[in-house]
Amino acid sequence: MNYLNRTPEEMRLLIRNKEFNKPTSGISPGYAQGNLVILPKKFAYDFLLFAYRNPKPCPLLYVSDPGEKNLNTVAKNSNIYTDIGNYNIYVDGELHENISNAEEYYKNDLVSFIIGCSFTFESELLKENIEIPHIVKNKNVAMYDTNIDLKDSGVFNGNMVVSMRPIKSKDITKAVIITSRFSSVHGSPVHIGNPKEIGIKDISNPDYGEFAGIKNDETPVFWACGVTPQNAIKKSKIPFAITHGPGHMFITDIKNSDLINY
Amino acid sequence: MNYLNRTPEEMRLLIRNKEFNKPTSGISPGYAQGNLVILPKKFAYDFLLFAYRNPKPCPLLYVSDPGEKNLNTVAKNSNIYTDIGNYNIYVDGELHENISNAEEYYKNDLVSFIIGCSFTFESELLKENIEIPHIVKNKNVAMYDTNIDLKDSGVFNGNMVVSMRPIKSKDITKAVIITSRFSSVHGSPVHIGNPKEIGIKDISNPDYGEFAGIKNDETPVFWACGVTPQNAIKKSKIPFAITHGPGHMFITDIKNSDLINY
Repeated sequence: MNYLNRTPEEMRLLIRNKEFNKPTSGISPGYAQGNLVILPKKFAYDFLLFAYRNPKPCPLLYVSDPGEKNLNTVAKNSNIYTDIGNYNIYVDGELHENISNAEEYYKNDLVSFIIGCSFTFESELLKENIEIPHIVKNKNVAMYDTNIDLKDSGVFNGNMVVSMRPIKSKDITKAVIITSRFSSVHGSPVHIGNPKEIGIKDISNPDYGEFAGIKNDETPVFWACGVTPQNAIKKSKIPFAITHGPGHMFITDIKNSDLINY
Repeated sequence: MNYLNRTPEEMRLLIRNKEFNKPTSGISPGYAQGNLVILPKKFAYDFLLFAYRNPKPCPLLYVSDPGEKNLNTVAKNSNIYTDIGNYNIYVDGELHENISNAEEYYKNDLVSFIIGCSFTFESELLKENIEIPHIVKNKNVAMYDTNIDLKDSGVFNGNMVVSMRPIKSKDITKAVIITSRFSSVHGSPVHIGNPKEIGIKDISNPDYGEFAGIKNDETPVFWACGVTPQNAIKKSKIPFAITHGPGHMFITDIKNSDLINY
């Protein structure tokens, strides 16, 4: 069955009904997918301020009202507790369980944050014929912990996690300009060139994901990464949080083209 | 005495000591000035989310921690309760008093929001030789209530207030591009052309400020305005709030050039 051209609403229903349970990369092309963070209202202010203070790693696509399940504004007829199909439940900062349906954890004081995801800017780069090695090789993107300090907010703090894409020297200017137009999906690169300057000791050994090599005519280009807020949540040891499982994003009705900065 | 080229820190001290008590337009050129909103922590989440949901009228330059007086990060050795020199105190949404020092109202649960101000983008437009009629005529900018709905957040809602600058037709493209680079000071225009489409019946009769005329070779260009959050606060009837008095902005150490979007 070819899922690639299903609408976001159709895909969310297939996921909810467990007819589709794979990572969502490449699904519903042209539509934005989001990282998910669900927190009790008690911690929502600190997290919202953390996101505002660190907009590159934590660009917000949507913030729900407390108890809001159906995120109609950005995903018609959705249920954020079922439409991802893979959830991590955190208790006191530790992974408690990984489940395919988070309904049993629903409470009316929980707030959902949908955070922009690099899938959007990658599709914009591909449209402009910029080669992205990990996509060519069908690997997950390489991600690294860095020494880039985040701005604290209440219980949330930490260092930035970045994703790295080797870009051909002739294409770097184009890649910077294209991604700078999409600040709600991490925006422009945070670093270009020597990985050591941001505390990455061994570029061939990422902390998350897979290394796809760097050729002689390529330079490593680093973007802020959505793993950052997940790490901050773990580090905060707050009593309860839900996130999406790795690679399983929330497929929204937001068109990538509507995310261009104006 | 010529105050124009005093540093922001010097100006804040002069204001604190009541040696300077005029509107701050044109003071410390090259540095960003901000609108002020101070609210009890209890309402800070709703307001922060309101600002996130309505970034054009409510672009945030800084959000303090509760009880923070000295906003060192953006204004060295400052006191946000004394360094503006003109404050409106609101009780239950009504103007309670206008005072030159707000120290007596300080509480350790109050959060300060510094909201970007059009002075920054006006100075960028002037640098590019775009004529701004109200500045030429030494008037306050014309501002209007509109039918543009804001996104609600908790107790905060309302319609957008816009400022209008007549721009020569040949300069509109330039004005859009320049202001689009400064999203933290209202960003690009929200409307260009016919005022009736956004609910403005009589362009010559602004709701706030002064009308400076529109010439035949000029088109009215509308930007989101910092009066918007003040109106939302009044409308919310929350028990307590402090804002800056009209024209008296908080002079920060942030360079306008550092506000360019990246």
